[in-house]
Amino acid sequence: MKTPAEIVGLMMEKDAYSNWLGISVDAIDFGTCTLSCTVTETMLNGFGIAHGGITYALSDSALAFASNSHGQQCVSIETSIAHIKAVQPGDRLKAVSTEIQKGKTIARYVVDVFNQQKELVARFNGTVFRTEKTW
Amino acid sequence: MKTPAEIVGLMMEKDAYSNWLGISVDAIDFGTCTLSCTVTETMLNGFGIAHGGITYALSDSALAFASNSHGQQCVSIETSIAHIKAVQPGDRLKAVSTEIQKGKTIARYVVDVFNQQKELVARFNGTVFRTEKTW
Amino acid sequence: MKTPAEIVGLMMEKDAYSNWLGISVDAIDFGTCTLSCTVTETMLNGFGIAHGGITYALSDSALAFASNSHGQQCVSIETSIAHIKAVQPGDRLKAVSTEIQKGKTIARYVVDVFNQQKELVARFNGTVFRTEKTW
Amino acid sequence: MKTPAEIVGLMMEKDAYSNWLGISVDAIDFGTCTLSCTVTETMLNGFGIAHGGITYALSDSALAFASNSHGQQCVSIETSIAHIKAVQPGDRLKAVSTEIQKGKTIARYVVDVFNQQKELVARFNGTVFRTEKTW
Repeated sequence: MKTPAEIVGLMMEKDAYSNWLGISVDAIDFGTCTLSCTVTETMLNGFGIAHGGITYALSDSALAFASNSHGQQCVSIETSIAHIKAVQPGDRLKAVSTEIQKGKTIARYVVDVFNQQKELVARFNGTVFRTEKTW
Repeated sequence: MKTPAEIVGLMMEKDAYSNWLGISVDAIDFGTCTLSCTVTETMLNGFGIAHGGITYALSDSALAFASNSHGQQCVSIETSIAHIKAVQPGDRLKAVSTEIQKGKTIARYVVDVFNQQKELVARFNGTVFRTEKTW
Repeated sequence: MKTPAEIVGLMMEKDAYSNWLGISVDAIDFGTCTLSCTVTETMLNGFGIAHGGITYALSDSALAFASNSHGQQCVSIETSIAHIKAVQPGDRLKAVSTEIQKGKTIARYVVDVFNQQKELVARFNGTVFRTEKTW
Repeated sequence: MKTPAEIVGLMMEKDAYSNWLGISVDAIDFGTCTLSCTVTETMLNGFGIAHGGITYALSDSALAFASNSHGQQCVSIETSIAHIKAVQPGDRLKAVSTEIQKGKTIARYVVDVFNQQKELVARFNGTVFRTEKTW
C-alpha cells in the first residue's frame, strides 16, 4: 500500500495545473496536507488582486491530496469558499487542510488559506465521495 | 452611467487571469452574462481532466461580471461549486449566470457551466456584497 | 414499484415533525414536489419573524420527498439555505423543489420558498446520496 | 452597553421557537456560545431519527446568539449544514459556536453539534451581515 507522500507524489507529478500554479507540497500525512504557492501577475483579476480562482484552486488541490492520502481514490461532491481578505500580487499563500469526518463513502475537509502575515485570506469546505478504487 | 458592456470591458481588460484562461464574453446584460473558454493541457489535474479551479474560475468571473454590471462595485461573500461531470481537455465550456436576488446590499447568482454537448458540468452559487462605489 | 405519491405518503405519515409544522403536500412527481405550511406564533424567533429553522425544515422535507420519489432511499449529504426575505407570522410558505442532477449515487435539488405574495423568501440547495435500499 | 449574556437573555426570552425546542444556553461570551436541547418524539422524521430541521434550528440559534453577542444586530446571509451522523430520539445535542472572522460588515461562524457520546452529528457554517443597529 502506498504512503500519503507516494500518492501525492503521483498526483502532483501529472497535475499540470497545480504545477502551473507553482504549488509546493510542504507537508502531507493521512487526511491532511499543507500546500503553498506565490501569487504572480498572471493570477490577478481586474481589481489588481488575486482572482478568486487562484485561492480556490490551491484549496481544491489541498482537498484532493488530503482526501486521497488514505489510499482510496476520492472525487469532489461539493466545495465552497469564502474569500475573507484580498490577496495581493507577490503574496505567499499557505493552505492547511484538516479532516472533519472520514466515513465509509463520504469525507469532509476544511482548508484554511493564510498569507505570509499568517492572516486568514480564505476558508474552504470540501466534501468528497470515497470510491472503491485504490492508489 | 456606464453600460454593462462598458463595465465588463473595463474589468476584462485588466483581468490578467481571465485573459490567461482565454475567456470570451459572449453576452452581457444587467445582472447576467455568458462566458466561454476552452480547456487546455495546462488546465488539467492529475486525473487528466480539468482541475476544479478552472471551472470555478470561469464561474467566478461570470459572478463578478454579472454582479458588477448594474454599475455598483460588488465583492464576493460566499461561493460554492458542485462539479457534476468531468471536463475533458479540449472541451469548450460555457458559463451562464442568472440573478436570483438583487437587494440593497446583497445579491445572489447561479452560474451553470455546460460543455459543448450542452451537458451541465458544474453548478456554482455566489453571493456578493454591493458596495457604494460605482463604476 | 411504488409511485412518488405512495412513497411520500409513507414518509409523511410517520414524519412527526413535518406534521407538527402542518406541512401539506400540494404536488409530487418524479424528482419534484411542492409543499406548504403556515407560520404560527410558536415558530417565531426573538425578532418576531419566523426562525430560520422553519424555512429550512420545510425545504429539507421537500428535498427528502423529491429525492426519495424515484424509489431509491436517499440521505442528505450537504444542504445550504439563504434567507432572502423575513417571514412574518401568518405567512403561508410554499416550497418548490427542482431536480438539478440525478446521478447513480448523487442527486442535487434546489428548493425555492415563496410567501403568499409569491416573493422568494429563501433558496435552498441540497445534495443527497442515493442508497441501494428501495421503498 | 449590554453584555453577551444580557443580549442573549433578551433574544432567548422572546424566541418562541428556541423555547419550543427546549434550548438551554450553557455558555455565552463575545462571539461564541454553547447551546443544548433534547430530541423529542415530535422532532422525528419519517425514518424515526431527528428531522434535519432540528439540528439546523439549534445551530441557527447558536449562530444568532454568537454573532449578536458583540452588541451589533446581525442578520443571516448564508448558512449550510452537513448532517454527519443520525440523531436518535432522546439524544442530548450540544452546539458549540466558534467565530472564524469578524469584519466590519461580515462575520463568519462554525457550529459543531455533538451528541451525548461527544460524536460530531452535524457541522454548520454561517455568514452574517452586521447591521448598524445595536442592542
